[in-house]
Amino acid sequence: MSEIPTAAISRLVTYLRILEQLEGQEIARTSSTDLAERAGVSAFQVRKDLAYFGRFGTRGMGYTVALLKRELVRVLGLNQTWNVVIVGVGRLGQAIANYPGASDYQFQYVGLFDVSPELVGRQVRQLTVRHIDELKDFVRDNKVDMGFLAVPPERAQDAAQALVDAGVRGILNFAPVVIGPRLPEGRPSEGSGQQEIGDEWRAVIVENVDFLAGMKRLAFYIRNPLLKDPTGPETPA
Amino acid sequence: MSEIPTAAISRLVTYLRILEQLEGQEIARTSSTDLAERAGVSAFQVRKDLAYFGRFGTRGMGYTVALLKRELVRVLGLNQTWNVVIVGVGRLGQAIANYPGASDYQFQYVGLFDVSPELVGRQVRQLTVRHIDELKDFVRDNKVDMGFLAVPPERAQDAAQALVDAGVRGILNFAPVVIGPRLPEGRPSEGSGQQEIGDEWRAVIVENVDFLAGMKRLAFYIRNPLLKDPTGPETPA
Repeated sequence: MSEIPTAAISRLVTYLRILEQLEGQEIARTSSTDLAERAGVSAFQVRKDLAYFGRFGTRGMGYTVALLKRELVRVLGLNQTWNVVIVGVGRLGQAIANYPGASDYQFQYVGLFDVSPELVGRQVRQLTVRHIDELKDFVRDNKVDMGFLAVPPERAQDAAQALVDAGVRGILNFAPVVIGPRLPEGRPSEGSGQQEIGDEWRAVIVENVDFLAGMKRLAFYIRNPLLKDPTGPETPA
Repeated sequence: MSEIPTAAISRLVTYLRILEQLEGQEIARTSSTDLAERAGVSAFQVRKDLAYFGRFGTRGMGYTVALLKRELVRVLGLNQTWNVVIVGVGRLGQAIANYPGASDYQFQYVGLFDVSPELVGRQVRQLTVRHIDELKDFVRDNKVDMGFLAVPPERAQDAAQALVDAGVRGILNFAPVVIGPRLPEGRPSEGSGQQEIGDEWRAVIVENVDFLAGMKRLAFYIRNPLLKDPTGPETPA
């Protein structure tokens, strides 16, 4: 599995979203050709992406939407509960905390953290906003898997480091700066992007969410409307 | 140009983001191999994606970061001003309005719209929140190109339709429902996803931003950390 490109994982997420749409439209079966058209890639690409993870569907018979969806949910690790803390509870952090859909995939918000005296102690989504200083103990005591970063750009590096030091396994960065891809940079002491957990070393994964990418795609398609696949899915964020 | 896959446009956006990072690191030259590694695709894919739009760089010499960046900015249509209205000025809409970076690419927020009596009339980012009923006149009078949708899911379809009826050329949908890909569905009278503008018909482009995609990628990489390319860029939103 060590040669699966990042783009293939993004496409798997797109295929899953398409399967959810098909299920919503009560369409029971699909094919690599159908998925390819909706995803704006080739049918060969779809089959190749899926082949990394096993053989789904029956040759010449296509795929059962419900079964392929279940398989992709399993492959993507969405069949387990993920405990999430949000660091930064300003407009963006509150928008994320209140954004519907995360719970569909067992992303559970268990803690909210900030440094602002106006926010610490406040209730958001039945959770009390805690001070960032409590992060490390909280992550340990609550088996936190992921941290979502929604702090101002100038705070992102330190907040990400605090999440890494607290021991989260992954960071989803909504702040408008690039962090990672494995560990916040500029901390030579952290070096390899790994940290000791018991006896083994493991990477802290960082995914950056780019709000501007959608704006850029939109600008392109407004100027080139004929290139917009009318059957295409939403482009994944 | 009628066969450029949607995925290629998303990759162009990724390449541009990588070039911005390289420029930030004062790296003056790159190559299809370097871009490919950072984007998690093949060098052939990079060359193929770029070849849709012309010949950049010199054979065997790679690319000048600044020049390729400028070309991609032009190709993506980011070298012009885009007048944007935001519909929905709750937490998410305000987070978008205040998210840094949009102005770097001449996305100019010229109007904010909502239906809530608590919001209409309020000042956000030096703009007065207007009632959605004023949208049509405002779009016409202010040469609005794009509408960003940040309304609750149950309002998204109607709000998108209001933007289309007002005459915007594209919609970036942040609401947690899929709209489009060309026009809000469920309006048979709108049918083809086109509307009359003067004598010609043109499509209204819709891009959907999927907050959950990043969460799903993160879940996968936490379970498969060795697959995470340590040199990879942030995955585009």
